[in-house]
Amino acid sequence: MTIRIGILGYGNLSRGVESAITHNPDMELVVVFTRRDPSSVKIRTPGVPVVSDGEAIAWKDKIDVLILGGGSATDLPKQTPAFAELFNVVDSFDTHAVIPQHFDNVDSAAKNSKHLAVICCGWDPGMFSINRAYANAILPQGKDYTFWGKGVSQGHSDAIRRIPGVRDARQYTVPVESALEAVRSGSNPELTTRQKHTRECFVVLREGADAARVESEIKNMPNYFADYDTTVHFVSEETLAKEHSGLPHGGFVIRSGTTGTDNEFKDVIEYSLKLDSNPAFTGSVLVAYARAVYRLSQEGQTGCRTVLDIAPSYLSILSPAELRKTLV
Amino acid sequence: MTIRIGILGYGNLSRGVESAITHNPDMELVVVFTRRDPSSVKIRTPGVPVVSDGEAIAWKDKIDVLILGGGSATDLPKQTPAFAELFNVVDSFDTHAVIPQHFDNVDSAAKNSKHLAVICCGWDPGMFSINRAYANAILPQGKDYTFWGKGVSQGHSDAIRRIPGVRDARQYTVPVESALEAVRSGSNPELTTRQKHTRECFVVLREGADAARVESEIKNMPNYFADYDTTVHFVSEETLAKEHSGLPHGGFVIRSGTTGTDNEFKDVIEYSLKLDSNPAFTGSVLVAYARAVYRLSQEGQTGCRTVLDIAPSYLSILSPAELRKTLV
Repeated sequence: MTIRIGILGYGNLSRGVESAITHNPDMELVVVFTRRDPSSVKIRTPGVPVVSDGEAIAWKDKIDVLILGGGSATDLPKQTPAFAELFNVVDSFDTHAVIPQHFDNVDSAAKNSKHLAVICCGWDPGMFSINRAYANAILPQGKDYTFWGKGVSQGHSDAIRRIPGVRDARQYTVPVESALEAVRSGSNPELTTRQKHTRECFVVLREGADAARVESEIKNMPNYFADYDTTVHFVSEETLAKEHSGLPHGGFVIRSGTTGTDNEFKDVIEYSLKLDSNPAFTGSVLVAYARAVYRLSQEGQTGCRTVLDIAPSYLSILSPAELRKTLV
Repeated sequence: MTIRIGILGYGNLSRGVESAITHNPDMELVVVFTRRDPSSVKIRTPGVPVVSDGEAIAWKDKIDVLILGGGSATDLPKQTPAFAELFNVVDSFDTHAVIPQHFDNVDSAAKNSKHLAVICCGWDPGMFSINRAYANAILPQGKDYTFWGKGVSQGHSDAIRRIPGVRDARQYTVPVESALEAVRSGSNPELTTRQKHTRECFVVLREGADAARVESEIKNMPNYFADYDTTVHFVSEETLAKEHSGLPHGGFVIRSGTTGTDNEFKDVIEYSLKLDSNPAFTGSVLVAYARAVYRLSQEGQTGCRTVLDIAPSYLSILSPAELRKTLV
């Protein structure tokens, strides 16, 4: 018996989920729901139907877990509670500031329909949250640092694309190596936004656009770039396609703290990710949590959870006894 | 209401537990049990009794969780099941090969007495196990690497001390930087024992001992040193006391794997620890799991668990709602 997975949406993240399923022999993709005309969506997995999301209710008993591939700005706040009425669900909601509100909405929908939901499954929030929680529990005296990159920020790339005269753009967030080293030394530095990350932009101009004006608009854009040391490179469309078409990302979660009765010992706990493809990795995390959701719902659990509420063993294809033998 | 903690034994690890309790305002040390004459054991926490371990039964209802500070070779295989008859218990059992057997022994004792036990709480096994489990679940296609150090190996230091002519010794296990870099590159190298770690020894000779013979005996000692590139430094007793009296340790767990339908993306997940004091950190982990044991036993759970069976939120002094707000 395999775990029957449905996917909502078919963007980058959903394709990451689709490929992650192929790496997990206990899972099977059974349907992809889309808002678009289903006949216009060609998916990779042979023989799996693409269905209008309005027809999801017909799949109520044919899916064990629905994985949501939508975005946090407008899709997930509506979709996760709505689909939790029909299915066990997993999402990668990542707007940190409104996680408690999203949790409450999903929790009441899932409790009401007796389904189980896990939200915020990705790497930040997600694996980074887990590492912050463990490190804070073990080292109550200490300071947390999160660095992102080197990687593509889609939000920042989009912001550049909205500037008149820009045809296309790709923005990399880059952690500052000397800041990382200062944190690893255990000196608990106070770091400004500018000291932690730099921003590197690759921009394709439209014909006749004023490069100096575009560069200045990027560098002075509030929130996105003004607080950072930003570098702008103008490149051809071919170069952008050839050298910057991937979606790499990653980052570092570091807690630097003290132990000992008089805080006489310094400890540094570091977790890092280096990812060739952000959506493929995030999809892999979603699929591992789909396994956990399936198992926990079999145990009768309902309502909403975050990654902090799920024991690591539930994510593994191995049994607890096999885990004790091989990975503990 | 604080969580009432007892400690069994009063060696380095137990002292680490004692100091970790002072960093956790929801916990209180209430008793230390010892095999020695209790009047000979002076502990740091004022007002806490030291009691013969034979009298533990009188404390049956006065302790919420007993933390075991003993060693894995001879103490814990007997103590953890025995004390699980009386208390909820946490240990740092670390003999990887016999974890399944230790688990079974503790599980039946704890189930029988309706207590809850968590074994193998430290950093390896412990935090490293957790990171291996998460990384394997997320990246089913990949390879695990564990490096230890730079840090003091007490087993190797003891082995040197048993050589005739050696008064005292301290051995550091050192990961090979180029091997770490090769692993981080995602090239999934096959590494021999010699390629992963070197061993550095600081040795104080007895008067008249033959340095060349001692050095040769160390370097050729099977299992401990023969498979490694080993460096031996002869130092004075004063130098050893001044420069090598600490118990620093740490290490790296790295999983390098692939995502994407055709394994076209490489990912590297890395977790590392840099610890000034191995026993103080291990004590901090034990105390965090004591909190989890307390909460889970309040929920009615009994039997044995490992760190893989415990959700991260149970370790935190914060409530799940506070965690969602601040650390997810």
